[in-house]
Amino acid sequence: MSYTIYLSGEIHTSWREQIKQGILENQLDIEVLSPITDHDSSDNVGSEILGAEQNNFWKDHKAAKINALRTNSYISRSDIVIIKFGDKYKQWNAAFDAGIAAGLGIPTIIMHTPDLTHPLKEVDAAAQAVTETPEQVIEILKYISQA
Amino acid sequence: MSYTIYLSGEIHTSWREQIKQGILENQLDIEVLSPITDHDSSDNVGSEILGAEQNNFWKDHKAAKINALRTNSYISRSDIVIIKFGDKYKQWNAAFDAGIAAGLGIPTIIMHTPDLTHPLKEVDAAAQAVTETPEQVIEILKYISQA
Amino acid sequence: MSYTIYLSGEIHTSWREQIKQGILENQLDIEVLSPITDHDSSDNVGSEILGAEQNNFWKDHKAAKINALRTNSYISRSDIVIIKFGDKYKQWNAAFDAGIAAGLGIPTIIMHTPDLTHPLKEVDAAAQAVTETPEQVIEILKYISQA
Amino acid sequence: MSYTIYLSGEIHTSWREQIKQGILENQLDIEVLSPITDHDSSDNVGSEILGAEQNNFWKDHKAAKINALRTNSYISRSDIVIIKFGDKYKQWNAAFDAGIAAGLGIPTIIMHTPDLTHPLKEVDAAAQAVTETPEQVIEILKYISQA
Amino acid sequence: MSYTIYLSGEIHTSWREQIKQGILENQLDIEVLSPITDHDSSDNVGSEILGAEQNNFWKDHKAAKINALRTNSYISRSDIVIIKFGDKYKQWNAAFDAGIAAGLGIPTIIMHTPDLTHPLKEVDAAAQAVTETPEQVIEILKYISQA
Amino acid sequence: MSYTIYLSGEIHTSWREQIKQGILENQLDIEVLSPITDHDSSDNVGSEILGAEQNNFWKDHKAAKINALRTNSYISRSDIVIIKFGDKYKQWNAAFDAGIAAGLGIPTIIMHTPDLTHPLKEVDAAAQAVTETPEQVIEILKYISQA
Amino acid sequence: MSYTIYLSGEIHTSWREQIKQGILENQLDIEVLSPITDHDSSDNVGSEILGAEQNNFWKDHKAAKINALRTNSYISRSDIVIIKFGDKYKQWNAAFDAGIAAGLGIPTIIMHTPDLTHPLKEVDAAAQAVTETPEQVIEILKYISQA
Amino acid sequence: MSYTIYLSGEIHTSWREQIKQGILENQLDIEVLSPITDHDSSDNVGSEILGAEQNNFWKDHKAAKINALRTNSYISRSDIVIIKFGDKYKQWNAAFDAGIAAGLGIPTIIMHTPDLTHPLKEVDAAAQAVTETPEQVIEILKYISQA
Repeated sequence: MSYTIYLSGEIHTSWREQIKQGILENQLDIEVLSPITDHDSSDNVGSEILGAEQNNFWKDHKAAKINALRTNSYISRSDIVIIKFGDKYKQWNAAFDAGIAAGLGIPTIIMHTPDLTHPLKEVDAAAQAVTETPEQVIEILKYISQA
Repeated sequence: MSYTIYLSGEIHTSWREQIKQGILENQLDIEVLSPITDHDSSDNVGSEILGAEQNNFWKDHKAAKINALRTNSYISRSDIVIIKFGDKYKQWNAAFDAGIAAGLGIPTIIMHTPDLTHPLKEVDAAAQAVTETPEQVIEILKYISQA
Repeated sequence: MSYTIYLSGEIHTSWREQIKQGILENQLDIEVLSPITDHDSSDNVGSEILGAEQNNFWKDHKAAKINALRTNSYISRSDIVIIKFGDKYKQWNAAFDAGIAAGLGIPTIIMHTPDLTHPLKEVDAAAQAVTETPEQVIEILKYISQA
Repeated sequence: MSYTIYLSGEIHTSWREQIKQGILENQLDIEVLSPITDHDSSDNVGSEILGAEQNNFWKDHKAAKINALRTNSYISRSDIVIIKFGDKYKQWNAAFDAGIAAGLGIPTIIMHTPDLTHPLKEVDAAAQAVTETPEQVIEILKYISQA
Repeated sequence: MSYTIYLSGEIHTSWREQIKQGILENQLDIEVLSPITDHDSSDNVGSEILGAEQNNFWKDHKAAKINALRTNSYISRSDIVIIKFGDKYKQWNAAFDAGIAAGLGIPTIIMHTPDLTHPLKEVDAAAQAVTETPEQVIEILKYISQA
Repeated sequence: MSYTIYLSGEIHTSWREQIKQGILENQLDIEVLSPITDHDSSDNVGSEILGAEQNNFWKDHKAAKINALRTNSYISRSDIVIIKFGDKYKQWNAAFDAGIAAGLGIPTIIMHTPDLTHPLKEVDAAAQAVTETPEQVIEILKYISQA
Repeated sequence: MSYTIYLSGEIHTSWREQIKQGILENQLDIEVLSPITDHDSSDNVGSEILGAEQNNFWKDHKAAKINALRTNSYISRSDIVIIKFGDKYKQWNAAFDAGIAAGLGIPTIIMHTPDLTHPLKEVDAAAQAVTETPEQVIEILKYISQA
Repeated sequence: MSYTIYLSGEIHTSWREQIKQGILENQLDIEVLSPITDHDSSDNVGSEILGAEQNNFWKDHKAAKINALRTNSYISRSDIVIIKFGDKYKQWNAAFDAGIAAGLGIPTIIMHTPDLTHPLKEVDAAAQAVTETPEQVIEILKYISQA
């Protein structure tokens, strides 16, 4: 039986493509959902569609709410939420997505390098698996997708 | 009618005490819940009670899960979760708490300085109020507590 | 056993006071919750606590969200939500509260004059009782509060 | 991945057709649900199927309940509820639908002209986006539907 | 720790009083909730408070909805719903209450004589205990209330 | 968009076939679910599959629980539960199904002759429509199924 | 209408194959979900994908959590959970799965020989049917799958 | 703020008394709930109150259901469920309680000796802490109860 997964977090590396490629190569019956990963488009969508704002707070506010229409809808439909943390940027939205999944009772797989273990301990403690590489995520997906 | 609030986030400033003091001075009927804010105690509780670990991952894991017994229980009983972000440390657990509250449908008040607006836009967008100071939080609590 | 009721809607007549008085006179074990009914205070709370806005949309937005901290918390704790519609103003927030109660599965008692029957038919159809006067509401509360 | 949307509110303009047309032209994978928008049919369905009533209250009551079989079923299946307010009629049912969506935790997009900002502030404050035109709604749907 | 119980069903025998007496004599920490058991008052409450109806259907409708304000509120607060069936009257409301409890996940204790076993098999199958006498109910309440 | 309906209650008349026929003739996109309507098979399924019982209570108990596997699964998947009451038999299981639907928040359409109005007032009061004939049910289904 | 079933418990006999065969032979519209039943693979998956552990507790921990990604996802999608207990091994995970189903409100069919009746009485008491053989399970599935 | 805990599992050692004593000595604001721990009373309650059964299955069935009235009510009110496994008896009911807590989203603390780690890996993997002694449980309760 198929799974639906949502890929949250880091947008400046190719980890999403690697996971999609692994799913394809292994012919797994898994639907992959993702946020908008075009950084500029995501930042500006609010003012571009709904009108400019003088105050950056409201510009960000309108964009974040439109993005949440997609993000929250996709998270709530997923069987598993996979979240990648990196050392660049604050990535509070990644931890926020992990919390939403926890609050909804949806299991998570976290991906990060070992140097981030301490600041991510609360997020990791609520996860079903803590991985370092896309290959490990693919192996888990293969394992749980066996007939 | 009384409210129960949970104060999540930053532990190295006195913002929790300021809010408690404001509640006291204004005689508000509000119960205040907080995480364990002693940093060392919170980091070591797992190994101290359940036994030492060679691998720091598991030391953190055990501690984070014991802390979650308190944190998650308190968040789920709260009417409002108030979360303070600062520029020190990564504070992914603060964003994680905000996400849990969102997933459970519990409203949040976020507190941070304006320079953090952009990285916190998703967290702010899901909040009922974004504040900069404990005084503003106290004013909101006073306002919603009127007879 | 006691009930908790929330009184939503019209703020420029004395219906809330009449219901509270009836509860007092009949010594009913009923806790009464209400929104902030001071119109100016309610309209300006956002800009007064969180800072002025050039755009009225955001001024209203910030005020409405702070008011919702109280309103939604009170509605979700109530056993019954009582909503009064009048012919002044649009009172979309009253119908919005009725919808929130319906979405949460909390029963409602609606109060309005017969000339509003047609535009309120959807709201009335989801209610447990449609009344015209505070006296009728008090009679219902007396009836369901018998030992 | 597809979305299901419900179009609530104003029935005497062509906004629903414009949104459907935009979805078609942009080949978006979106299912569109709507209430019965034939005004007479919707008003009379109760007495026509279930028998005439002397009292208009019960005529309206029976019609509103049959309409709610469709309306509530459709709202609860939707990923997003889009609600259009106009200046004609009281449109309490539109605000009621917005409240039901809020109570069920389903996100909303609101559409209205700026002169309605103040009376709609509570409804807008709970929405993910506040728009003025069908074009803006279509732009949002296009944006969140990107591969 | 205390229990809250709701006593549904048959209103023309003294079974409620016997259970209350047993709780009193055994000093059990149990709160007892009941519907309005005055038959006339319960039948007429709608027309008496909200106005007379020519059609008995609406007279019954208004009364049943006011009674449901109490009944449903009490059932949803209960730890256990106890329902007594007799051979008089159709008692569809008793089976309806049993269904509401089942739909809400609240356990039931059913009371009836053995000759009603076959028509009540679906209701009994969903119950935690099927009893014949108030004494048996009291024994169960004593047993589960031990320190 | 399609509906799923469950037809509960009376098994010795042809009302289910009439509704199915009406759905077919009107080409409505409605999936129809029903309980096992073979009376003997339904009564004996427990002892036939799981072994005979000396005590009729347990014979009924085992049968009712197997039937509930189908009944409850079907009710919980339905958009609308339609329940027919007749004057034969006690039909407590029909009222029980109506209660389960109410407890789960699933709307109901009730069907019965006017002489049953008084004993069914609680069940009717929680319904979206009270009908007398299969034709009326078909009319409602046609109405809510319009494009 | 189809059912989805999950087959939990005993992995060293052929009961799952027998049930699948029975479903096939009777052409039942039933989707069958199962855990990973390769014992070694299931025990070692954590260390094989995520890295070796010195402490067996953490080896087991990582494996159990990955298995839970599949198990919990499958249980929560099922209409019925079927659980087989044997006298070999402790099979606490089978009882744990039965509890998860109970907590989620998903009905269960239990399978075991009569000598296990006493230690399984709590698990059996929450089940819809207690069987001894795969044939009985198939008979139940045939019965509830009738057109 | 206080916690409510439920102590499930092993009934032939004094672990419950040790935890209660520790709570008393440390003046923790914790309410302790337990099942009936008198083995004979618990086994026979069904037949003693509701009548003897020839078949032991039904004797156990009636007893287990009455015990579940207490057990399930207490588990669902708890903030934390603490479950002790021993090597005597099969203790499937302890694993069943752990599953119910997991299904309801209530956190658990598990207690057992290290030799039971492998058969309890699924239960442990879903727990917030795995302990060996009552002293460890008391330390955790002291830690999370700090002001």
